[in-house]
Parts: sequence; structure tokens; C-alpha cells
Amino acid sequence: MGNAPSAATAMLETAADAGVELCFANPGTTEMPLVAALDQVPRIRAVLGLFEGVCTGAADGYARMTGRPALTLLHLGPGFANGIANLHNARRARSAVVNLIGDQASWHRAADAPLTSDIESLARPVSAWVKTAKSAQDLAADLAEAIGVATGPPGRVASYVIPADFQAESAGGSARVETVAAPPVPSDRVEAAATRLRAAGAAGLILLGGAGLTAASQRAAARAAAATGARLRVETFPAVWERGGALPAIDRLAYFPEQAREDLAPSDAVVLAGAIPPVAFFGYPGQPSQLAPEGSVVSLATPDEAVETALLALADALGAKSGPEVARAPLPDAPTGPLQSVSVGAALARCLPEGAVVMDESATSGLPFYGMSTGAAPHTLLSLTGGAIGQGLPVATGAAIACPDRKVIAFQADGSGAYTLQSLWTQAREGLDVVTLLCSNRAYRILQVELARAGIAEPGPQARSLTQLDGPALDWVSLAKGFGVPGQRVETAEELVAALPRALAEPGPQLIEMMIG
Amino acid sequence: MGNAPSAATAMLETAADAGVELCFANPGTTEMPLVAALDQVPRIRAVLGLFEGVCTGAADGYARMTGRPALTLLHLGPGFANGIANLHNARRARSAVVNLIGDQASWHRAADAPLTSDIESLARPVSAWVKTAKSAQDLAADLAEAIGVATGPPGRVASYVIPADFQAESAGGSARVETVAAPPVPSDRVEAAATRLRAAGAAGLILLGGAGLTAASQRAAARAAAATGARLRVETFPAVWERGGALPAIDRLAYFPEQAREDLAPSDAVVLAGAIPPVAFFGYPGQPSQLAPEGSVVSLATPDEAVETALLALADALGAKSGPEVARAPLPDAPTGPLQSVSVGAALARCLPEGAVVMDESATSGLPFYGMSTGAAPHTLLSLTGGAIGQGLPVATGAAIACPDRKVIAFQADGSGAYTLQSLWTQAREGLDVVTLLCSNRAYRILQVELARAGIAEPGPQARSLTQLDGPALDWVSLAKGFGVPGQRVETAEELVAALPRALAEPGPQLIEMMIG
Repeated sequence: MGNAPSAATAMLETAADAGVELCFANPGTTEMPLVAALDQVPRIRAVLGLFEGVCTGAADGYARMTGRPALTLLHLGPGFANGIANLHNARRARSAVVNLIGDQASWHRAADAPLTSDIESLARPVSAWVKTAKSAQDLAADLAEAIGVATGPPGRVASYVIPADFQAESAGGSARVETVAAPPVPSDRVEAAATRLRAAGAAGLILLGGAGLTAASQRAAARAAAATGARLRVETFPAVWERGGALPAIDRLAYFPEQAREDLAPSDAVVLAGAIPPVAFFGYPGQPSQLAPEGSVVSLATPDEAVETALLALADALGAKSGPEVARAPLPDAPTGPLQSVSVGAALARCLPEGAVVMDESATSGLPFYGMSTGAAPHTLLSLTGGAIGQGLPVATGAAIACPDRKVIAFQADGSGAYTLQSLWTQAREGLDVVTLLCSNRAYRILQVELARAGIAEPGPQARSLTQLDGPALDWVSLAKGFGVPGQRVETAEELVAALPRALAEPGPQLIEMMIG
Repeated sequence: MGNAPSAATAMLETAADAGVELCFANPGTTEMPLVAALDQVPRIRAVLGLFEGVCTGAADGYARMTGRPALTLLHLGPGFANGIANLHNARRARSAVVNLIGDQASWHRAADAPLTSDIESLARPVSAWVKTAKSAQDLAADLAEAIGVATGPPGRVASYVIPADFQAESAGGSARVETVAAPPVPSDRVEAAATRLRAAGAAGLILLGGAGLTAASQRAAARAAAATGARLRVETFPAVWERGGALPAIDRLAYFPEQAREDLAPSDAVVLAGAIPPVAFFGYPGQPSQLAPEGSVVSLATPDEAVETALLALADALGAKSGPEVARAPLPDAPTGPLQSVSVGAALARCLPEGAVVMDESATSGLPFYGMSTGAAPHTLLSLTGGAIGQGLPVATGAAIACPDRKVIAFQADGSGAYTLQSLWTQAREGLDVVTLLCSNRAYRILQVELARAGIAEPGPQARSLTQLDGPALDWVSLAKGFGVPGQRVETAEELVAALPRALAEPGPQLIEMMIG
């Protein structure tokens, strides 16, 4: 039976039958049977990344845009470890990602060869499901279980460790994936939220997250809010946020806890719709962890429940028959003069093509964009969910693979962009329509802000050195060229306004390095 | 007592008092008190990396060249995770590395803010010591313990998780580090090894690793071998190997198990001096894990014992009064014609400056160098100890910081170089004398070899795509320029022979992209 399909093939057939179409891969020797199996199962497209963080971030971006899981293919513990930071973000984004991690042949593990390590210990902190294959016969059934867990609802990271010998052995056929739908929210919870919002009036607030940020969810939330006078907010780092066009303009909850608390302070009722109770990103002296006023939090729908249906039911329960009139906000004027974060925000808001996907890892440089883009063309915004920087370029890469008919903009800070810049090569190789808008301020600006917040008004030379990215400044046009992506540098708002539409009109990846003053 | 030193300062004083001089850092918000403390303890030099794998690899390179520990400063679980691959290599190299990992404020952990994760679970697979600080008062004493563990002997990785609030609080003074020397090898073990080697005669073999690869160890081993007719071998991936000049020419044990087993097959006695029993790097069908013939292995000195003294004692026990005459091997001829791995090996062997440090992550392209460089100028060779690719450029960076008076050559494959190419920026910023000799073959060649070994004679399109680095090829001269490192491309052996001495003569980093046919 030398021609019987390998267990690796049966496993990939299982994935393909469940609708899996992508495998973001950076394989090594222990994954060779899986690499060979990819040619037996061409329904799954293999995309190579030069670094594992590109693969895991791209899988996250793909999952966010499609709602379907992507595979990654990674090389033992160290290869997996290189992908952990973006799996951390994927976990916080509730994205469906299934990691296939090759390991030493089962009989060779005890030899403790150089690449051997405890992969499960590495995988657990980012994975809802971790398993090491015990025999070739298990592979298809185990993967079916992994995909079932990963598809949630809403979405989870699953990590499967597969000794090389099991991959190569022949085994039985493929297995069937069981999926479940998001459970509906009980009507008494909808009623309770409605009651609290009615009582709170203008002191009510609906905090949207997860599936509460679809277009339909936001319209329902706006209806509900209009009925009682409640305010609306979006969680600080949403995974997928539909924005622009005729959608209601909703502010994000602020990043710094004192600002978020001030914003939430007047709220008697903070109704959570797909969001979790808001907490400070970091702990600062004198600022509590929990941001909402005590006793204010009301759960309408958790992220793993049917959020959109719950918001529609809430609006109905509040008797809000029709939505509020949403006047599309005017676009900002064309910016002029030196490049600053305000001019960047204006230029981007004006140029956004309909249906654009904006992956925002612009950090401090990107803040003005939000207020300026509420009247922009309808677009999808992806943000840095887990705070592990180096997500932007990989997620943009995966989003572009997921949505070949849409323009993707990687709105990217320079410091965080440097972590996973190898993404540019995958964009070039796959011919992806990604425009990287690189905000070059030659600093970890947020850390300079944090030093000041920590009371260090005049940092010494070592602290300055650790928060500045000059001497030498990165030359992003050369870096992009090195990976096969055409780039250009702009120094003024006028140059940006001219360059951005041209870059968006080109097929394939482009990079614009913006020298922000 | 607002001006009392912070616990972070007391901790860094502890490290400085123990001789720690370097901190390779990529900090974030939760490490700000430690960043500020670095300006209070200027005896410790902070060096910024744009990616954590640069920091951990540089710490490994520094520790290999100095025998002293370096600190890293990393940002919570995801930041640490980015450094794991090179910590895996450091663990296999038995390098002394102490990771300082900031964490959420102790009172804020329970809020499960976005960047929170189980850091200890991530750290355990690469660390001999993992601890989370329980109070500010513990920091200095805990770090003293960590440094004690890390300094071995021979050297270990220690990981210390430090909540941000504890770093900032004031605490007691610094603590004292207790270190221990490598224990001597009992004389009966030396006698036993001598007896086995005498009995084996030409069927004896001494396998050198760890401290068995100092110049004195190798000379003692050569004396011992000459007395009995035994052969000498170096472990396949030595951490630090003194070579060239008048040192004996010793081959490495081969990488592929069938070759290593054939080499070892005639050995009745395989005496381990600082090496561990040789095992296959990967498990292949039909090849056992253990490479030495059954019953042949004799331990003279483990890596954590006094290997050099044991080898001297062995040579004396064998009555080998003077070393064998070592004729310095001739240098290869100057290569001509197309660039191939043979011409690269010859050019490098001929040009090596006295005292050069060669970090070899050249993979398949570098193999001919070994045989051609036995008569080269005395140099130190560092190799990829743990198989986690992306070590070369970071380790070269740390080695150059450790040895400012020596030339460092990063002999680097293109595929593995792409994982941690951000190292080039640190080299530029610190003005390090590193010449990166970049072997561009536009492929993961070793994986193409492994596919063939796995019986896949004609890989399908997906397997081909996952093992080729073309379409587009990386342009390493542009990548280097982007990070501030001058580069040039060479296409022939003659161009390389002309370019290499010029690059070595320049101060600061240089990159030569070698287009290998």
C-alpha cells in the first residue's frame, strides 16, 4: 500500500473539506511530508513567509476578513515561537487560526536532538487547544477537532504538534469537522439591558466590540441609543470594524485610563455588546484596572454569543422602529505643508477607496485619522488587538489574500513595522494590492510619552537611546526595494496627497515612506 | 525617601557588581522603570535592537566570546516570545544569558489586559531558571540568584519576570552573586578513558565540544590522540571553536546521520571531552538516534566540568610528553570564475584576519570553508548550536560588541539571514566591525535536499514554491542600505577576492552579497 495517502494528506483533505483554503507556511525538515501533501491537496493554497510572525499574522488577517480559519505550517518549537507574538494578537482578536507544528520523529524525541524542545509549553499561552499527535491514525480526527475549536464561535487559536514520522505514514481517510453557531442571547438579558438603558437615559452607553461592529450591529446599536439618549463607543482595539459611508460615527474608547474613565464616568449603565468589560491597557499608579464606574456594567452579549441578533432585539425592545438619520460627515480639506499626523489622517481619509481595508498599526501617528475618516468611503478597519507590535504588515498581507478585490492599506508606524518587515516580500511574491503607508517619526514615540508619564521628564542618555530610532534612521524605500516592493518617500502633505492615489491605482504592493516632522 | 534608589536600580547594581556590562534591550511600557535605572547604572551599557531576536542572539554572542553573562530587557510575553528562538540556540550553546522581562503591574495582572499572558510557560522551555518577582524587596536577591544560575558552569539561560510596579518601588541595596567554578574531573575517570583509548588504538576517537575546543584543550587532545593513534572530531555544531594557525586540523562530525555513523563505525572507544553523546539532528527512517557504535561511548568530561584540565590530565596519563608536530596546512589558491561555495570558502580562508571571529550560519553554502581554512590565520568559529535559524546576524552583533578589537565575519545564508536582518541596524548604530558575507542562492537549499531525502524526487509546484526564495529574489544590498549598512554585490570569485579585503579594512559594518550560482 505504498501509494496510500499519507496521514498528512488525509489531514489536509479534512481541512479542505471544512472550507480551509490557505496555509501560511515556513516549513523545515520535520514538515517535509506535510509540504509534499500540499501538492496532493491543491485546494489548499500554500503561501510562504520568510519569518513565522508573517505567517501567523497573515493567518489572523485572513481569518478576520473571511471569518474562516487559516492554517499555518511552522517548524518545531523555535519556528512556532517566532509566530507567538502575532498568535497572541490573533487570540485577542478571536481569530480562527490552526497551527500545524512539525516535531521530531516520535521515536527520536528522547534523544533531545538540538531542535527538540517543549512545544506544548510554548503553545499553551496563545492557544485554546493544544495537542501532540500520538499516532498517524489520529491526524485527520485531531485536525477536525482543532478546526472545530478554532472556528469557535467566535474564533480561537488551536495548535497541533505533529511528529514527522506520523505525517509520512499512511493512514485512514479524512475526518469531518463539527461546527456550532454562536448561541443566541436569552430574551431576559435583552430585556434587562433595555431596562437599564431606559433608566439611564443620557447616562447610558453601549460599548461595541467583536461582532457588535458589523454594519448591521452598528445600525441597530445607533437605533437603540437614539431611543434612550445613550452614547455609543467602540472598544479601544477592535479586531474588525466597519466604518465610513453612512454608518454612524462612533468614537473608540480612549487608550489612556484617565481619559477612558473620564469618558465613562457619567455612565450609569455600560451595556456590553460583543465587548468585554473595559480595563486599562497598562496599570498606572492611582488608576484602577477597571475603567467603567462600579456597578455600571451590563452584559448584553459576550463575544461568543450572537451579538448582531442581540443588538437588533435590543433596538426592538426599546421600540426604536427606525434608525436615526446619519448625515455623512464631510471629508477633511486637502492637507498642505509639513507632514504631521493630522495631515496624514486627512490625506488617507480623503483617498480611501470604497471597500478599502485599513490595518492600523500607526500608533501615535495615526490618532487623528479616526476623527477625520468618519465620512470617508465605507471601509473596514483592523487594529492591533493584543498590543504585540509587528502585527500590521502581516495582517495586511493576510487581509489582501482574503480580499483580492479590495485595496488594503497598511497604516504602519516605523518602530513596529521593523519587527515583521519580511511581510513585504510575501506581498511582492503574491502580487498583493497592499499600500503600506509608513509613518516615519524615527522614534518609539509612545515610549517617550510613557517615560514622561512615569515622571522621567528629562531622560538620560540610555533612556533616550532606547526610545529613538535615529542614528541611522531606517530607509524604508530601500528596505521595500530589497523585498521587491516599489517605494517612494514623501516629505510634505502635498507630496502625500499626490502620491497616495497613484499608489492605490497601481496593481501590486507599494510603500510610501512619510517623513513625519 | 522619594530619592531612595528604585528596586530596578538595586537590581542593575547587583548585576554590575557581578561584572555584567551589557544589556541588549527592546523595552516597552512595562520596563520604563528599568530603562530609567539604566541611566543610574551607567556601568551597564544598553544596546537597542529593533527586534527581540536580535537582542537574545546578541546576548548569546557576547556570552560566547566573553564567558560572561549579558542581560536582555524584553517586553512581556510577546516581546519575550520574539526572543525565544535565539534563546533556544543560547541554551544549546550553554551561554550565560539573563532575561529581564517586564510584566503588568502586580495588581493589574488579574484584569487580563490585552498584553497579559503566561510568561513563565513561554520561558520554561529555554530557561534553566524562571521566576516571577513577588515584591520589590526581592529584585536584587532574585537577580543575584539568576546570575548565579546563568554563569553555570558552563552557562545557562535564566528568565526573570518583573511586574512594573515592583521595578519602580524603592527597595534595599544590591545583592551579591555567588558563582562556582567548573568541578574537576575525578582522576579515576581520566584513568578509565586512558585505558579505553590505549586498548582501542587506531579505533579510538576523542570527540571535542564545549570547553574542549579551546586552543589548550585541542593541543592536549592532539597529544593524547598521537599517543594512542586515536582520531579527533569536533561536535557538529560547536558554540565556540578556536581554529587555524598552528592548531591541529580537526574535522567536525558530519551533519547527516549516515555519514556520521560511517565515520564513527570503526571506533571502539568514543571519548567525550565537553561533548555530549552524538545524536542525529533529525530522525530519518532506518537511521537510529544514537550515532556512536553501541558500547563505545566513554565520558571523560561533561560540558559542565573542567574539560581543559581533564584533557591535559588525559594526555599526561597517556604519557604524551610533547604534542605532535602540526604542519600548518597550505592556504587554498585564489579562486576564479563563477561564485560557488568552494570559491567562497577559498576566498574567506585566504582573507581571514588574525583573530577574526567567524559566525557560521552559511548552511549548505559554507561547507567547503571548513576543509579549506585549517591553515588560515587563527580565528574563532561560532556555529548554529540549536538549529533555530536566524542566529547568525544577531550573534555576530553581540560578538563584535564583546570583541571591539577583532573583525567579525557573519558568514550567512540568505534564507536564515532574513529572519533577523534587523541586526544590521544595531551594527550600524553601534559602528560594529562586522562584515556580513551573504550567500545568496535564492533557496532554502537544505530543504530541497531534505525533500529529495524524503523520496520526493520531483516536488510539485507548492513544495517548489515553499523551498525557493526567488520571485522576487531578495536584494540584500538594498536591505543593508535600508538599515544603514554599506553593501555591495559580487558575481564572480574575482570580484569577491577583491571586495573582501577592502570590506575588512573598513571600520564599521559592511555587507557583501555573493550571488552563488
